Amino acid sequence: MGEYEQKLAEMNIVLPNAPLPAANYVPYVQIGDMLYVSGQLPKDGDRLLTGKLGDDIDISQGAEAAKICAINLLAQVKAACDGDLDRLKRVVKLVGFVNSTPDFTEQPLVVNGASDLLGEALGEAGKHARAAVSSPSLPFGVAVEIEGTFQIS
Amino acid sequence: MGEYEQKLAEMNIVLPNAPLPAANYVPYVQIGDMLYVSGQLPKDGDRLLTGKLGDDIDISQGAEAAKICAINLLAQVKAACDGDLDRLKRVVKLVGFVNSTPDFTEQPLVVNGASDLLGEALGEAGKHARAAVSSPSLPFGVAVEIEGTFQIS
Amino acid sequence: MGEYEQKLAEMNIVLPNAPLPAANYVPYVQIGDMLYVSGQLPKDGDRLLTGKLGDDIDISQGAEAAKICAINLLAQVKAACDGDLDRLKRVVKLVGFVNSTPDFTEQPLVVNGASDLLGEALGEAGKHARAAVSSPSLPFGVAVEIEGTFQIS
Repeated sequence: MGEYEQKLAEMNIVLPNAPLPAANYVPYVQIGDMLYVSGQLPKDGDRLLTGKLGDDIDISQGAEAAKICAINLLAQVKAACDGDLDRLKRVVKLVGFVNSTPDFTEQPLVVNGASDLLGEALGEAGKHARAAVSSPSLPFGVAVEIEGTFQIS
Repeated sequence: MGEYEQKLAEMNIVLPNAPLPAANYVPYVQIGDMLYVSGQLPKDGDRLLTGKLGDDIDISQGAEAAKICAINLLAQVKAACDGDLDRLKRVVKLVGFVNSTPDFTEQPLVVNGASDLLGEALGEAGKHARAAVSSPSLPFGVAVEIEGTFQIS
Repeated sequence: MGEYEQKLAEMNIVLPNAPLPAANYVPYVQIGDMLYVSGQLPKDGDRLLTGKLGDDIDISQGAEAAKICAINLLAQVKAACDGDLDRLKRVVKLVGFVNSTPDFTEQPLVVNGASDLLGEALGEAGKHARAAVSSPSLPFGVAVEIEGTFQIS
């Protein structure tokens, strides 16, 4: 087990098998050392974290969903790196889409669930650029969807 | 006519002239072999496919709009390649924005209209990473807007 | 003062210190000559331009917010270039998220506030690819959020 996965294990996080896409596309595309990963949903085993911020779930539930999106992003990166997550050089950018009502304004606190996980698990390599916005709805009613760009070796 | 355009012709698709931007920007920017294409609208000749998923149009109409966005993305790639679409190496990533109500949850089925077209016309080169989310509204009331990143030679 | 900042000064624009992120991430990540800048908010000194298009603000107010987002993007680019904005080679792509009601359809006119500023200040280097969509809500209730990709030397 590599350094990053050991750190994740200390955080009680085991990367799942990389989730399959919900439709007709691929989980990631690598061009040179850049890895473009498809939007990941908060799928935790058989459980899908659904709900709308400002309506039926609160910020801590939203942040938990964002955290699971980040775990699934890392699972995709690991798959792209033939199982060796330590080939991850840098989390470049995340775009987080928060399922929310029109009056919800705490998107950053929700997407922090992903950013905090990446910072804690990956240190300097986890420091990323980011955009956090809302969507009026997301696939299958999930609370958060996050896409990511990564640099790998 | 190149290989990809022949395949498109078999699918009864003729690439239009690359649509002009709706405002003060350019249709694409090339950096090295990466091509960043502006968000394309479902403009089919003089017709603009408008409507909101979950309200006044259904999934098949949304998927048709996404397909037209993909055709317009390819038209821009062709223009960037000086008319030779076969210089397209890979569709890297699409981000699809679906105009929908807050309770619509089938964004993937809508954006599949674009992904299916690209897969069928381009084969391996058409396999892309993707995010599919909703917007509460889109320019001119269109049903779908899709931006894309491509690798060209 | 470099050429671009002189042009900005003629436009009565002084770049602020680069705004800090609203949460646990970094303002930009550089990979090679590509610079990925986090979503910027319309923060003008202590003032934050809030409001929703189609509801309590109009297109000119939205465009002003987009312009301030663009100024903050340039402030981040300048910081990434160790204070020398003339190292900016190209604005590659903007994605503009407009805080709007479900029936607002003039996203391009709003995001033009950013595109016009960049075109006027930077000339050829300011010509960018772009997507303009709506969000039902944005962080702190801001009117617009814009993320950007840049090429620097």
